Amino acid sequence: MRENAKDPERHARRMAAKQKIMQSRIDHARKEQGVLLVLTGPGKGKSSSGFGMLARALGHGMKVGVVQFIKGKFSTGEEAFFRDLPGVDYHVMGEGYTWDTQDRQRDVAAAEAAWEVASRMLADDRYQLVLLDELNIALRHDYLDLDRVLDDLQARPAMQHVVATGRRAPQQLIELADTVTEMKVVKHAFKDQGVKAQKGIEL
Amino acid sequence: MRENAKDPERHARRMAAKQKIMQSRIDHARKEQGVLLVLTGPGKGKSSSGFGMLARALGHGMKVGVVQFIKGKFSTGEEAFFRDLPGVDYHVMGEGYTWDTQDRQRDVAAAEAAWEVASRMLADDRYQLVLLDELNIALRHDYLDLDRVLDDLQARPAMQHVVATGRRAPQQLIELADTVTEMKVVKHAFKDQGVKAQKGIEL
Repeated sequence: MRENAKDPERHARRMAAKQKIMQSRIDHARKEQGVLLVLTGPGKGKSSSGFGMLARALGHGMKVGVVQFIKGKFSTGEEAFFRDLPGVDYHVMGEGYTWDTQDRQRDVAAAEAAWEVASRMLADDRYQLVLLDELNIALRHDYLDLDRVLDDLQARPAMQHVVATGRRAPQQLIELADTVTEMKVVKHAFKDQGVKAQKGIEL
Repeated sequence: MRENAKDPERHARRMAAKQKIMQSRIDHARKEQGVLLVLTGPGKGKSSSGFGMLARALGHGMKVGVVQFIKGKFSTGEEAFFRDLPGVDYHVMGEGYTWDTQDRQRDVAAAEAAWEVASRMLADDRYQLVLLDELNIALRHDYLDLDRVLDDLQARPAMQHVVATGRRAPQQLIELADTVTEMKVVKHAFKDQGVKAQKGIEL
């Protein structure tokens, strides 16, 4: 029994204090604005977190845009699920992982075409949330001009939310972001224990 | 221009080598089994990652179960979105955050009732993925008997995936898990900059 299991009154007092703190934080957080969220690091859950936020936004009736910068073997599940839902504008970059295409120029051209789509979403305030899945990978490989990406992100509508995922986010993107989460590997079934990558789950 | 921007042949060679490594990893990962994934740590994205995995599983036509152990103000978006989809069995624990109810006994009773639902899902191989959202919080507050939770997780069908979210996962749960991601806060708009918590987005 951890915490205040044996002293319900102390528990109630602590929780009342906590409620006060939470409420005061909410009261003081007055700036209502779109948020740029970056999900990075080597751990599992970056893209799925972006797609979960998409679901949450759709649950609130928002219009959302998705650009997937890496068309991976595992991305078919999300695509099948979200692609044809009302309120979703879904774009997948034409090529696969760079280690599958093995052609840098084709990768660059595909990434640039994908950014054109992203850029139009970032200039359109009807999109309330834009998910740029694996953008960080495209930036890491210099498939896109970082300055252009940063400019488009900064120039977007004030209330628009953006989620950018992928390991190794560039430092300038982290600096521009409002919220950044780094996903750390504590354990990894696929690598550590030889567990077979599961159809569409990739836990 | 980072990496091999100026030497496309070297780039192609490196990517071919990488493809070989990735393929050999997949070939060697022979154990096909359900995975227990724990998403923990203080950073943003734990629950949304769980819900993204849910979407991915649904995209592959799987049957999924959800038990939310904390009925938070922000969870309404996911609930609205997923609750009535075909293939989804959705259960929300009766009470709100513990600092809202301020009644430990009510919290314990609600958590136990929620675990009854989870436990039935974990005993039923028709559920291919079970999301136990904020389970770690309920364990942290000792609202549930940890041994019972661990036993039910271990006894589940071999092919069933489970995702458990929430900060401060207990060490025994981490030990039992196949994959564990810790979400680290690099930056947080809500705390650092007084950005108002957004309707249903909570980035």
